[in-house]
Parts: sequence; C-alpha cells; structure tokens
Amino acid sequence: MSFQREYIKGAINTPKGFTSCGVHSGIKKDGKLDLSLILCDRTATVSGVFTKNTVKGHSLSRTMSLMKNKSAKAILINSGNANACVGKQGEKDAEEVANLLGKALGISSEEILTGSTGVIGQTLPVEKIGEGIKEAVKSLDKSLKSGENALIATMTTDTVPKSGCMKICIGKEHFHLAGMAKGSGMVHPDMATMISVITTDCKISFDLMDKALKQVMTKTFNRVSVDGETSVCDMVLMMSSNQSSIPEITDSDSPEYNFFVESLEVLCTDLAKKIAADGEGATKLIEIKVINAKTRNDAYLILQSVAKSPLVKTAIFGCDANWGRILTAVGYSGADFDPGKCNIKIGNIEVCRKGTALDFDEDKAKEILSSDTVTIKIDLDSGNFCDKIWTCDLTYDYIEINGSYRT
Amino acid sequence: MSFQREYIKGAINTPKGFTSCGVHSGIKKDGKLDLSLILCDRTATVSGVFTKNTVKGHSLSRTMSLMKNKSAKAILINSGNANACVGKQGEKDAEEVANLLGKALGISSEEILTGSTGVIGQTLPVEKIGEGIKEAVKSLDKSLKSGENALIATMTTDTVPKSGCMKICIGKEHFHLAGMAKGSGMVHPDMATMISVITTDCKISFDLMDKALKQVMTKTFNRVSVDGETSVCDMVLMMSSNQSSIPEITDSDSPEYNFFVESLEVLCTDLAKKIAADGEGATKLIEIKVINAKTRNDAYLILQSVAKSPLVKTAIFGCDANWGRILTAVGYSGADFDPGKCNIKIGNIEVCRKGTALDFDEDKAKEILSSDTVTIKIDLDSGNFCDKIWTCDLTYDYIEINGSYRT
Repeated sequence: MSFQREYIKGAINTPKGFTSCGVHSGIKKDGKLDLSLILCDRTATVSGVFTKNTVKGHSLSRTMSLMKNKSAKAILINSGNANACVGKQGEKDAEEVANLLGKALGISSEEILTGSTGVIGQTLPVEKIGEGIKEAVKSLDKSLKSGENALIATMTTDTVPKSGCMKICIGKEHFHLAGMAKGSGMVHPDMATMISVITTDCKISFDLMDKALKQVMTKTFNRVSVDGETSVCDMVLMMSSNQSSIPEITDSDSPEYNFFVESLEVLCTDLAKKIAADGEGATKLIEIKVINAKTRNDAYLILQSVAKSPLVKTAIFGCDANWGRILTAVGYSGADFDPGKCNIKIGNIEVCRKGTALDFDEDKAKEILSSDTVTIKIDLDSGNFCDKIWTCDLTYDYIEINGSYRT
Repeated sequence: MSFQREYIKGAINTPKGFTSCGVHSGIKKDGKLDLSLILCDRTATVSGVFTKNTVKGHSLSRTMSLMKNKSAKAILINSGNANACVGKQGEKDAEEVANLLGKALGISSEEILTGSTGVIGQTLPVEKIGEGIKEAVKSLDKSLKSGENALIATMTTDTVPKSGCMKICIGKEHFHLAGMAKGSGMVHPDMATMISVITTDCKISFDLMDKALKQVMTKTFNRVSVDGETSVCDMVLMMSSNQSSIPEITDSDSPEYNFFVESLEVLCTDLAKKIAADGEGATKLIEIKVINAKTRNDAYLILQSVAKSPLVKTAIFGCDANWGRILTAVGYSGADFDPGKCNIKIGNIEVCRKGTALDFDEDKAKEILSSDTVTIKIDLDSGNFCDKIWTCDLTYDYIEINGSYRT
C-alpha cells in the first residue's frame, strides 16, 4: 500500500460533505466579516480540545457540554465579541444564536457547536447575529472563497489567514484533511490555545479521531506561545464527514491510522507555526528547542519560561544576541538542571558552552537574528528528553495593538 | 516607652559607623558611576536574601558563601557587568576584586561582600575596577552626596534613585535605618528581586536581624514584579554596626523588636513600590490586591499571574479598563477559585461582580487609569486570605530599552 500526501489549493469546505461561508453581521464596526459557518450535509463525527482556563466563555461552555454527543452538523463562530463574563445572559445568548441557526437550517440546535472570540464582558448583539445567520445560510457553498471567508470571519488581530488543505492518498483512494486557525494574541499552551477547526472526510471512528487529535495537540497547538496568556475562548474542533471512499480506519496500530496521525501533525504544526509567526506585533518566528533534559517536564518548564520571557523576546526583536537572558530564563524556570552543563546555540552559532560565554561573531549573530525565523537550541546535557515550542518577538506593535484593544 | 519613626534627609551611610561612596571605574562607557562601596568602621552583623534563580552570578555566589560568617565590614557592588556565566574566570575575578579592596582597606577579603549587575556573559574588567577601588577608598565619607553616589553607582536602567533613611526613636534614644535599592528590569519575586542594601546602627543579634529581614522580604521586595523575570544577581544585604545608644534588642516578643520589624517593613515597602513605579519603561505604578482567597497560595498564584500579564499591563498603559483580561489572567493562574464569585474593582469603580460585567462609567475609568498609581482589587469571596503585589504598565519604552540593552 502506498501512502502520500500533498498540500492542495483548498479550504475548510474542501473535504466531501462540507460547505462554509463567512459574512458580516455587524458585530465588528468596520464592515469586516465576523460570522463564520461550517456545515456538514450529514451528521459528522466531532472531537474537541478546550482551554484549561478556569474562566470559560459562554459559547465555548455550551459547545463543551455538547461534546458528549460525539457528533454535530454545524459550527458557528463569531469574532468581535467573546461572549464571556456576562453571566446568565451569555448562556442564553449562546443558546439563542444556536436556535436561530437551527431554525434556519432545519436541524436541531444540539447539532450546532458555537464559538466566540473578541472582547470580553460585552453581551452578544443577538439580533444582528440573527440577521447574519440568514445571510450565512444563503451563502454556504464549496467555493474556495467561501472556505477562506469562513476563516477570515473568525479573525481578530490576525494579519494573515492561517489555513491548509491536504489531499492524502492511500493506495488509489484518497481523503482530505483541512484546517484553519486564528491567533493571534492571548496565546499560550494550556490544552488549546486558539480557535481552530479541522475538517476531514476520512472514515474514522470517534475514538480514533479523538485519540489522534489529542496526541497531535501536545506537539503542535499546545506548543505555541505568543504572550503567555491563555484565553477563555480557546478551542480546537475536528469534524469528519466520513464520506471518502477509503475503507474506515479502525485499528490504531494500522499504517493507515499512523499516516492519518502523521498528516494531522504536519497540518497542525504548520498552522501552529503560522500562529506564532503572526503573533500580535510579531516580526519573526522563534523556534525554541530543548534537548537532553532530565525529564519531559524539565524540558517543558524551560520551553515555557524562555518563550514567555519578555527580555528574550525584546532582545530578538532588537537582533541582539543577549543569550544571558536565555540562560536566566532557563534558570528561573523551576526545571532541574545543571547550569555548568548548559550549551546554547542561536541559529548555528554556539554562544554559551557549559554555562560559560563563548567568543562569537556578533555581526554574524545579528544577521541570523535579522531573518524571519530564529532558532534557539538549549542543550542541557543531562538526559534524553527533548521538546520544542514556537513563539515570536515582543515589539512596539504588541503595545500598540493591546494598549487600546476595545476602542 | 514611646516609639516613633520619621524619614530624615540621609542615606546608606547615615547610620553610625558607616561611610560610603560611588565612583566611575570605567565599566560603563558613558562616564557614569559604576562602583559602589559601603564600609563599616567595625565588624558589622550581616544578613542576606538571594535570588532563587538556579543560575547565579559569580560575585553573588561568592557573597552567599560568606554569609556563614554572619559578619562583614564592606560591600562592593559594580554595575554595567553582571559577572555571570563566564565560568571559572568569573569566580577568580570576584575574588580578585575583593582581594584588591582588602589590600586597599587593610582588611581581610573575607570581610568584603561583592555584588555585580549589568550585562551577562562578559568578563569583569578587573584592572579598571582595581583603579576604581583606589579612588573609592579615598572617597569614602559620611556626606549625603557619598551616600547617594553609593546608590547611583549600582543603577543600570533605573531612572531615579530609590532610597530612604529613618530616624527611629525608642524613648529618648534613637537608631537609624537606611535603605537603597536598584531595579529596574528583570524583576519578579523569587526571594529577592533586585540589589538592595539596608544599613542600621541598631544593636541587634544576627538571629533577630535575620528573622526580621526574611519576614519583611515576603511582604515587600518579594511582592514586586516588573516583567516576570528573576535575575541571576538579585540580593538584599542588611548590615548593622550595632553602634546606637539604645540597648540591644534581644527578645523577639518585645515591643522594641516589633517596632524594628514594622519600621523595616515600612522602609522596604516604600523601596519596593519605588522599584515597581520605576520599572523599565513604566508610566504608572500598579497595586494589585487579592482578597478573600481560599488559601495563601491561591492569592499568591493570582497576584503573580495578573502582575505578569502583558495584556493587563498594556491595557493599563493605554488607560483601557479591559477587566476581561484581569479575569482571564486570574482564570489561568492555577488558583482554585469560583469565577462566578469573583468581583473586580479598578480604583473605586466596580467593573465585574460575580464574574459578570457591570455597566460602568468608561470616562471615569479612563480618568482613574490615567493617574500615576492604579489599584486593582480582586475579591474571590471564597476565604480569608489576602495579599498584594506591585507592578507597572508595559509600554513602548520597555521594548526600546530592552531591544538593544547590550549596545
């Protein structure tokens, strides 16, 4: 059996059975798309991963409570308003929005998953959204434009749409796997870190799809940090229409399942990196690798600490190879490590060996730090565990964007 | 017995027995003071609190190893170079600097405590410091100018000197308590969070002074966060010349001891707030209070999370009462709390009650957020524990300062 995958021109509505659209319902004042709808023509298998923040948005809470069904037909996401921290009204509004869509589509509101992202503490303009829903239901189709619009309508401070669509061939048959994700601030690992939807037409049971999603999250969406903040609205939803012609994947030890997981990981890695690169105000993507840590947890503590360090992130913005700040962040991470064994590389330049400064070419370092992607490698020389995380630099624009987000 | 205290015009060299100075030795390129010397004419009692960062500067490590003596005569601190992460050479350099000063003063190098702050990963220019030491030894005196210079010579990105001197009267006798502190970046609680020296002439045993210092740290210097970073060079050193005329404080239950501790807390609170207000790029001081938490640890987790939140700090910079970000940071703090019971006040405006948005006067909120000091009060309504922390806003200038710190 041959296994192949390739990115194709496509979107969230490319997998068989899906249509989508994005419309402007009036939540956003500037006329931008703010209501995203994705529909499956038959009941789809659904799995999800949700924010670990104790505070949860009302639209998200509603969706979490529906996950026990393991199936749904539609996903409705608005941007511009998080529908969070507005009490019982927020719960009612999430339900009302689903009811309106259910009526318009002629399906049960229980088959509709909801998501909201934007400003916290303001009630949803349900009437406007109701109007938007009418338009959305009419706009649903399989065009590339409608696929892209479904993503654009979920975006807040994102500057570029982040999506990918794969054709995955197993033997002579194939299925599709498509993903879209929005960042771009309030992003930090805690099970889920953004709003993302993944669709596929691969025939796969709930249990195997759920297993694959959770396994892949750990290495991808849960390894992105923009600013150390974990939002109250973060979720990743995955839907399968089960409509491709390949036989159902039923065995988690099969090469088919492994290739499915691997493909999902490739897609989510690419989306995760795009989220970091498009982090609020970012001018560059930073990939931080920890190798040879004593334990998995030590590696992760260090990744989190360095990825969150404003001093590391401003230095990289300024193209300053100030590696002392990296070692400092490693030092206060809480990880068990020996500073005297720690080696640090920025790009391919070793700047610190055994915890001690090395002479290095500052001009060459500046050149490396001036590129779009900067890699930091921290070798602890104390064990066998490695891990990596993606983040971005901290810039004037982050302050600009967040100094007056609500106005 | 009457107890009184007042701030007086004075400095670190005001308590009996102390002289000090600050000189330019050439570590800093711009001619600014970079070498601080504080001397006690007799052996002083010494206690200290040090960074919990696993990575430690060499000058600091040397001082830590001398704390077992519980006494010293001099403190020598340089700024502009952290003497950190340069291996054996750093250890040698710290020792050599102490030797040079020991010779110049005619005392044992074991009686000299060392500290360094500045860029990490560069070796100390020992020869220049040697010249500086010669000048410093000649400059030691009790003048206010020399007291202030001892502080200025420890400063890096600080924009204002932070110090205080108290006259403390017990009956008809009195003693002095003086403190100086430098921030202003890489500041976050982890036992100590800056370089600070406190001098007194109060007669007090090592055990009681040490107890007082550690007790007060928790509520003061360990409740300041500028940027969530814990430096490798942080320490607070306290020295007593024991030369005042009041009888020795020997009993930790005595009103004299209690007044000593209380005065130390007032002094350190004032210094801590000054550090936060002068945080890198700060335009305002933020005081965050948590009340009615279930446990002490829950209160502290929330304080840390909110104080570190770049989104809270940029919103306050932008005078935007975006309290949703505060509740979000509470939510991902890891603390055990019920969002549905959480009340939030910005200044005297209640913005959120029982986790739900309140209508409030945005103009009045903007006015409150425009003042030099902003108070955030988070009421968890779940227990009896309360705590507070001081931090500052996150601004363009933080990026400016830290984008090119080494150049």
